[in-house]
Amino acid sequence: MNTPYHNNQEFLSHISIDSVVFGFHENELKVLLLELKDLEKYALPGGFVKKDETIEDAASRILKWRTGLDEIFLQQFKVFSSPDRSKDNPTIPIIKSLIPNIDISFYNDRFISIGFFALVEYTLVNPNPDELSIKCEWVNIDDAKNVIIDHSDIINGALEALRIQLNYSPIGYNLLPQKFTMPELQKLYETILGKQLDRRNFQRKILSYNILNRLDEKRVGVAHKSPYLYEFDLENYQKALENGLKSGW
Amino acid sequence: MNTPYHNNQEFLSHISIDSVVFGFHENELKVLLLELKDLEKYALPGGFVKKDETIEDAASRILKWRTGLDEIFLQQFKVFSSPDRSKDNPTIPIIKSLIPNIDISFYNDRFISIGFFALVEYTLVNPNPDELSIKCEWVNIDDAKNVIIDHSDIINGALEALRIQLNYSPIGYNLLPQKFTMPELQKLYETILGKQLDRRNFQRKILSYNILNRLDEKRVGVAHKSPYLYEFDLENYQKALENGLKSGW
Repeated sequence: MNTPYHNNQEFLSHISIDSVVFGFHENELKVLLLELKDLEKYALPGGFVKKDETIEDAASRILKWRTGLDEIFLQQFKVFSSPDRSKDNPTIPIIKSLIPNIDISFYNDRFISIGFFALVEYTLVNPNPDELSIKCEWVNIDDAKNVIIDHSDIINGALEALRIQLNYSPIGYNLLPQKFTMPELQKLYETILGKQLDRRNFQRKILSYNILNRLDEKRVGVAHKSPYLYEFDLENYQKALENGLKSGW
Repeated sequence: MNTPYHNNQEFLSHISIDSVVFGFHENELKVLLLELKDLEKYALPGGFVKKDETIEDAASRILKWRTGLDEIFLQQFKVFSSPDRSKDNPTIPIIKSLIPNIDISFYNDRFISIGFFALVEYTLVNPNPDELSIKCEWVNIDDAKNVIIDHSDIINGALEALRIQLNYSPIGYNLLPQKFTMPELQKLYETILGKQLDRRNFQRKILSYNILNRLDEKRVGVAHKSPYLYEFDLENYQKALENGLKSGW
């Protein structure tokens, strides 16, 4: 078996990448994790930077290799650099057992890890485990605790970055289906923020951004009054991504 | 002469740090730069990460070493990783001339650089050049062009991060004198944003955040009507730093 773990001479030493991929499904915010072989622990999809590539290219390549996901918009958010973070990394014994004659010194070094996050449409993802893991699966953000080394800190850091981004950037296009109701959009915001929002204030504020089109269609078969369906106005959404929401200065 | 450049065995390879230190003076946003010896070019105060320290500790240590500044709150904002960025770095000949028998291979490697930024009170700073530079000085942000390698991108990236931060975080405490007028505060925002703001909207919005105390004092000796002086309400300012401005979700 040939794996990227063999070729560690092609990577920069001391630098790794970990990606937090968020999806939204059935009113839950989920994160994509790999369940490691023989460990009953999860890990973020991560890897190393080739000597001739940017960290952005590395993050895309790693995510594709580890999960089969392609063309994901990844954003770097923070570097994690505790000097102790890579001590006793439990993936090293797995690499050793996969490749018995490997020079393990590359992996035993100290690593700083560059955290990236992405928002993806849950239904489009078909996660594939890599050779270190028995499965790759969506885990509810509240249950994503049983992870290796500092991956909890990286997940929390990504969530914090996402919450901050809600203040100046539109969100939802990659997380919701094409047509959605106002309560579904509000639930997305509430799930990311971890708190309840006032229904009328939310609606007033989100409509003021001019990024939604109300359709002449209603969701049928739900309790109470049938709610209208909305879709994102992609031209205005794109403008707001570039220039910030109108609530800015 | 003994300099930190001698001891490159104590640093992680491939990783550098560059800090963009902003100050505000006479209605201008300024950035702290080192003028390099024999080059007529400027560089950001930067350096390397010791094998046993976090990147945050490294950034603080480097800024103190390079500029004399202590206890600055530095925030990491982005990693710069173009594979070509460290080719032909013009500081390498300066290091060679300072330390003729140095093993230069450490410096010739590819480096990714972690960008930090800080906001400091202009009047408190007494910049000191290090041994690679003839001076350390404040340069107007619009004039900070004649810089080495990708330091222009790093300065622009820091400015962008600062602009984004204006949307969810209070700003000004480390940039303005203790007492200031509303037009002075507005000018700070306008200078960071690079655009003019409506006077009445600005005043209404900034007052709604509840982070200002209006004093029973007016600025005298200025043209037109004497404007009131304000100071930050430090308790509410601190709360807004932690929880975000009230304009958030």
